[in-house]
Amino acid sequence: MTDPDALADRVQDGELRLHELEDHADYDTAATARRLLVERETETELETISDYTFPAERAEPNVENMIGAAQVPLGVVGPVAVSGGAADGEHYLPLATTEGALLASVNRGLSVIRVAGGADARVTKTGMTRAPVFRVAGVVEASETVEWVEKNVDRLREAAESTTSHGELLGVEPYVVGDSVYLRFAYDTKDAMGMNMATIATGEACSIVERETPASLVALSGNLCSDKKPAAVNAVEGRGRSVTADVVIPGPLLEERLHTTADAIVEANTRKNLIGSAKAGSLGFNAHAANVVGAAFLATGQDEAQVVEGANAITTMDARDREDGASDLYASVSLASLEVGTVGGGTALPTQSEALEILGLRGGGDPAGSNADALAEIIAVGALAGELSLLAALASRHLASAHEDLGR
Amino acid sequence: MTDPDALADRVQDGELRLHELEDHADYDTAATARRLLVERETETELETISDYTFPAERAEPNVENMIGAAQVPLGVVGPVAVSGGAADGEHYLPLATTEGALLASVNRGLSVIRVAGGADARVTKTGMTRAPVFRVAGVVEASETVEWVEKNVDRLREAAESTTSHGELLGVEPYVVGDSVYLRFAYDTKDAMGMNMATIATGEACSIVERETPASLVALSGNLCSDKKPAAVNAVEGRGRSVTADVVIPGPLLEERLHTTADAIVEANTRKNLIGSAKAGSLGFNAHAANVVGAAFLATGQDEAQVVEGANAITTMDARDREDGASDLYASVSLASLEVGTVGGGTALPTQSEALEILGLRGGGDPAGSNADALAEIIAVGALAGELSLLAALASRHLASAHEDLGR
Amino acid sequence: MTDPDALADRVQDGELRLHELEDHADYDTAATARRLLVERETETELETISDYTFPAERAEPNVENMIGAAQVPLGVVGPVAVSGGAADGEHYLPLATTEGALLASVNRGLSVIRVAGGADARVTKTGMTRAPVFRVAGVVEASETVEWVEKNVDRLREAAESTTSHGELLGVEPYVVGDSVYLRFAYDTKDAMGMNMATIATGEACSIVERETPASLVALSGNLCSDKKPAAVNAVEGRGRSVTADVVIPGPLLEERLHTTADAIVEANTRKNLIGSAKAGSLGFNAHAANVVGAAFLATGQDEAQVVEGANAITTMDARDREDGASDLYASVSLASLEVGTVGGGTALPTQSEALEILGLRGGGDPAGSNADALAEIIAVGALAGELSLLAALASRHLASAHEDLGR
Amino acid sequence: MTDPDALADRVQDGELRLHELEDHADYDTAATARRLLVERETETELETISDYTFPAERAEPNVENMIGAAQVPLGVVGPVAVSGGAADGEHYLPLATTEGALLASVNRGLSVIRVAGGADARVTKTGMTRAPVFRVAGVVEASETVEWVEKNVDRLREAAESTTSHGELLGVEPYVVGDSVYLRFAYDTKDAMGMNMATIATGEACSIVERETPASLVALSGNLCSDKKPAAVNAVEGRGRSVTADVVIPGPLLEERLHTTADAIVEANTRKNLIGSAKAGSLGFNAHAANVVGAAFLATGQDEAQVVEGANAITTMDARDREDGASDLYASVSLASLEVGTVGGGTALPTQSEALEILGLRGGGDPAGSNADALAEIIAVGALAGELSLLAALASRHLASAHEDLGR
Repeated sequence: MTDPDALADRVQDGELRLHELEDHADYDTAATARRLLVERETETELETISDYTFPAERAEPNVENMIGAAQVPLGVVGPVAVSGGAADGEHYLPLATTEGALLASVNRGLSVIRVAGGADARVTKTGMTRAPVFRVAGVVEASETVEWVEKNVDRLREAAESTTSHGELLGVEPYVVGDSVYLRFAYDTKDAMGMNMATIATGEACSIVERETPASLVALSGNLCSDKKPAAVNAVEGRGRSVTADVVIPGPLLEERLHTTADAIVEANTRKNLIGSAKAGSLGFNAHAANVVGAAFLATGQDEAQVVEGANAITTMDARDREDGASDLYASVSLASLEVGTVGGGTALPTQSEALEILGLRGGGDPAGSNADALAEIIAVGALAGELSLLAALASRHLASAHEDLGR
Repeated sequence: MTDPDALADRVQDGELRLHELEDHADYDTAATARRLLVERETETELETISDYTFPAERAEPNVENMIGAAQVPLGVVGPVAVSGGAADGEHYLPLATTEGALLASVNRGLSVIRVAGGADARVTKTGMTRAPVFRVAGVVEASETVEWVEKNVDRLREAAESTTSHGELLGVEPYVVGDSVYLRFAYDTKDAMGMNMATIATGEACSIVERETPASLVALSGNLCSDKKPAAVNAVEGRGRSVTADVVIPGPLLEERLHTTADAIVEANTRKNLIGSAKAGSLGFNAHAANVVGAAFLATGQDEAQVVEGANAITTMDARDREDGASDLYASVSLASLEVGTVGGGTALPTQSEALEILGLRGGGDPAGSNADALAEIIAVGALAGELSLLAALASRHLASAHEDLGR
Repeated sequence: MTDPDALADRVQDGELRLHELEDHADYDTAATARRLLVERETETELETISDYTFPAERAEPNVENMIGAAQVPLGVVGPVAVSGGAADGEHYLPLATTEGALLASVNRGLSVIRVAGGADARVTKTGMTRAPVFRVAGVVEASETVEWVEKNVDRLREAAESTTSHGELLGVEPYVVGDSVYLRFAYDTKDAMGMNMATIATGEACSIVERETPASLVALSGNLCSDKKPAAVNAVEGRGRSVTADVVIPGPLLEERLHTTADAIVEANTRKNLIGSAKAGSLGFNAHAANVVGAAFLATGQDEAQVVEGANAITTMDARDREDGASDLYASVSLASLEVGTVGGGTALPTQSEALEILGLRGGGDPAGSNADALAEIIAVGALAGELSLLAALASRHLASAHEDLGR
Repeated sequence: MTDPDALADRVQDGELRLHELEDHADYDTAATARRLLVERETETELETISDYTFPAERAEPNVENMIGAAQVPLGVVGPVAVSGGAADGEHYLPLATTEGALLASVNRGLSVIRVAGGADARVTKTGMTRAPVFRVAGVVEASETVEWVEKNVDRLREAAESTTSHGELLGVEPYVVGDSVYLRFAYDTKDAMGMNMATIATGEACSIVERETPASLVALSGNLCSDKKPAAVNAVEGRGRSVTADVVIPGPLLEERLHTTADAIVEANTRKNLIGSAKAGSLGFNAHAANVVGAAFLATGQDEAQVVEGANAITTMDARDREDGASDLYASVSLASLEVGTVGGGTALPTQSEALEILGLRGGGDPAGSNADALAEIIAVGALAGELSLLAALASRHLASAHEDLGR
């Protein structure tokens, strides 16, 4: 066995570089050596970071320069009662977060949803995108390129799909800006979140575009994809899964459990989530959908930076007349671009994999894509619960203070 | 000691509810009992989730319904060479992620930055915001309310600051939409990210607004804050820290280390990050700043959902003439709304706290706010390195294929 | 008198250029000669374009290369019943348009507003902006520049205001992106729309910035102003006048005159103007405010391209309980960035000047700014009428078809 | 003949309403009577408004409550040298405006473009859109509706096209938000701008959707169209015509005619139009495209409120190496959503019709659609000239002051 101390010495002496340690020792020893070095140079003791409990080798596809692990508290909410296109029944939803009160709030919402008979959920659109940018001489060539692409989608499909056993090319949308041509490729990537699949497949298709048209590839991602940026193209057209969850909460249940009314919740939603977001120039018309998306992503090994697109969500609340003159509440959340998978990425890491098992969604689904669909639907119901709970809290506070006013 | 199995039985029997376990046992036992229950009901074995290595009690401010922890691989990049307004010298930057190749890419960029003499960085604006929404009868009352607020900022400041020992009210910006009035309060929250501080302080100020004007509070957050949503108000006006990092990379260094030229990088940046993002209707004009923000947030205990605002970043690349006729590269990234703290939130959790120690930024700074400023600056340099590295990869691939073309 | 035919010959012979005709003849002759030339070269007869009925000289500040005038049908709607901060009483609003049914629709809305007792209106914010962009070496200099600006607003004010007898500098907001610094100057330009005033004043202030800081001016407008572009900065922060008009329409009046109910209008507004615009990634949450803005701008000599900013409007509709169990309708429209003036620009042209006279708002107001405020308020009420009318039409159609459904 | 004075009396006496005059007199007499009434009530003399020179009857499809016409100064620029997909050769472009210096600036740009051999232009996408919004019970019905629509585009096409002799349905794109379903119908409307055609055709298609699915129509426009609002959906996906014009200006020509260099123009464009607009949260990355769009719209009878969408334009400037070591300038402008027609709307009005004749584009083209395509291309070249001219002015000022600096 190599001695981590000795390895750390060699890095300090300039013989080895920090990222070369895995060439000289097994993964855990390398991580130890690297941590030792950091401890020496920063005069720290990294006791808890070193306390990771999985073989470092399992993190090899996920990180470089590993020194240990971040441990993030993980809890469960639910059960989530859902009647989805793919998800069905009741599921505990694991959430990892550092934000106190989040799970309690979501749990309260889920409990009300459960009593109301569960939420509906549907994935209404699917498509992981990659949009390379090409250089042309000008709009004349741009126009030729677009025309060629529109006539040769089959050839592009053949090339793209030759690189993947699962992915399917759904379409290619061209955009022209001066002497730049962007081609937005969309794929059904089944149970994988699919960025890598989409990138590799698109790369292959680009070779043909470069060969057959005047266009030269400048970047495999030209930001019309758009990955990890807050972009209208995703909010409007979707990326990954577009998924909606909704529920009707009976008026009496609102009063009993959430101490408020449909009208009060509708007002809070309209002034805050619709008009407030409108005035803010926002693409997110919700209260805190990103909280649930972020915590579920972290627990289940999704890409944490894709919380950005997960925030492109619209929450609607509507009062529906009851025969008794009161109102029920229709509540929905529509996430335009939720990028999730149950295979690949961080999903195979030990704790993340277990979190997917809690959901019954580890690995590929049958039919292919159904596990990722179900994950999207369950997260959407979680987000719905979070919206409902927070808006009800605002509305009941308001009612409470209204009552106080009357009491004066 | 309470037996976790027995507790799990009681939950299954409906005697206890899932979130009540902490009332009947210590935190670790409660977590164990809850995990047992989940294991039984989902027929899973949560071995690694249970392998958290900190006292569950320490996570009490951060999570409810805890069953364990998510372990996310954590590595280091750097050293980050920075000459900032608050940060100085060289720092290892811990990053927790599941995205392979990210740390390698950032590290490559940091290495080039180091050779180039390090990056500059500055926090150019500070202000954690909270924007309550009020109901008025109509624009006449709205107008009165706005007038009152503009004349009474001092009273609002007094009320707001009475709730905090550190925070300072920087200003209040009113917005009117029909019969809704939004007041965007901005605070200097020093070393705390400051959402809670801002919320509590604003709540106090709202009481005065309600007492002195016709306005009634509907929601303490009216989405003009705007928290965890992709909103132009943050991209334009900033939230948390607005921070820029930049560097000039000598042309020869670009060629030697990144196998490309300033012109090629500028082209990739313009077509992808500027024009591509423009066409996408984006608020993020960068390649993958959210990757670095997300991984640093996760490592250091920031709010993972605030990666959303962290993506509001603009990357610029400019070729600068050299005397020898070649070009150096000016590279910058400007993050409009980076919300970070070194106290509060998840920063006190064991691994997260150690990550801040690696940076030398654990706890409050001297002067107050300087640690959070430094953290923002270092993350910005990390993001700059990620941009530089990715764009250089695109540009060099391109150069390579250009050379092939010439070779034909 | 110069002969226009002979002049046209000289242009055709290449002796004169098209824009030099005014150097060789009076304005009307020059216009005639130019028109003759265009007629010859395009083999057309421009009978009606030539039929303008004002001295060409009066258009000299407004156009070059004049050949005549476009005649756009002009009608009136109203009276507009308004109780504003500046406008009061009843006013006919002249509108010039080519869109059939527009005036009829607005008129219907105004009639209902009149019966309801008139609309309230208020200018809630004022400020014509100009935002030059400066080049600096990097963020260190950017930071210095921003600091200098923040400390020297008084010097900038003195310089800016030295160029104008009316304008007042309200503030300067700095923005940093890499090695670019943007300074958004905001002015109270009184009864002038104020772009020219703001540009000249800002130019003067820029000289000082260039002298005292490391910053070099690149462009007097750096697009953060932002003029004639659909930009969030205007929708959020306002430009020109931010103005709201609102009204409460009694339920019975809705039924009698608009054949619909508050609830039906609220539903149409929510699904179309709020949620539909949200999903569209829009900055305009209204039905057709730009129609009224455009037609009023054209009639009164405003800058037709600033209709772009005029479309940054949010329409809200809310049902308010009545004692009899039915609902009244609260209706509002808030235009964030309405850029209007009653002096300067096209306001002095003959027909445009008369249109302002119809409104009683020709020339400067007393106090200064009150005429432009009143114009903004009246246009806002016109826009409100247009929103109300169109939404009521949607809602009543819907009710009608709902009745048919019941009849089946 | 009816006496206008007597008619005005009857309106003042409350016997007639303002909009009923056409029922009691010919169009010109009605206009006169209405104008008399306005003159009396506002104590004005509307001499020039009354001086319209066309039969009022011709404006009947375009305006109600007519009292006369607005006269807007109209000039010509050009010739515009264009090599387009539909436009070819040289054309004078009529522009109506009140903004002094605009035509001079555009003319300067056109002159340089002409010397450079003319601009290329292409319509790269076509489609006038209408997006009705439907109510469903929830996402389950929404999902069913979307599925039905995707399978029945042919039936929708048949219904839609049954209402029009020219229009063709290009596609239908569904969007789901909670219990609202939006269907964005796109049409090739040939030489008509096509809003009316699209609205009528979509109305017919909606009847089928309502009959065959659970969806109920709430509004024929659900704002995802999106008409006369600044919306990302148009900037990204286009509406009407997406059109690009570009040109390469030789370096020596830049110096001689515009007194600047490619590098200086590129810098101004990058800092102002790209980075400045990015920071402004804009959908318009240009200097003043709306000016040319607005003035051309007004001259040729387009819908003046659609200048809003016309501002969704991106300007790019790129320096291209010359063999002599200097640089040429590649300049382009891409208008995403230019909504133009040569038949219908205001195009048949006298002066507007003549303006189209100047362009040789009056009425329907052969093949159908080619006249509107050509108009789009010529306006795009006009916008390009405006961008070039303004940026060159900024750049040369800058060079000038740089020279002064050197002279010191």
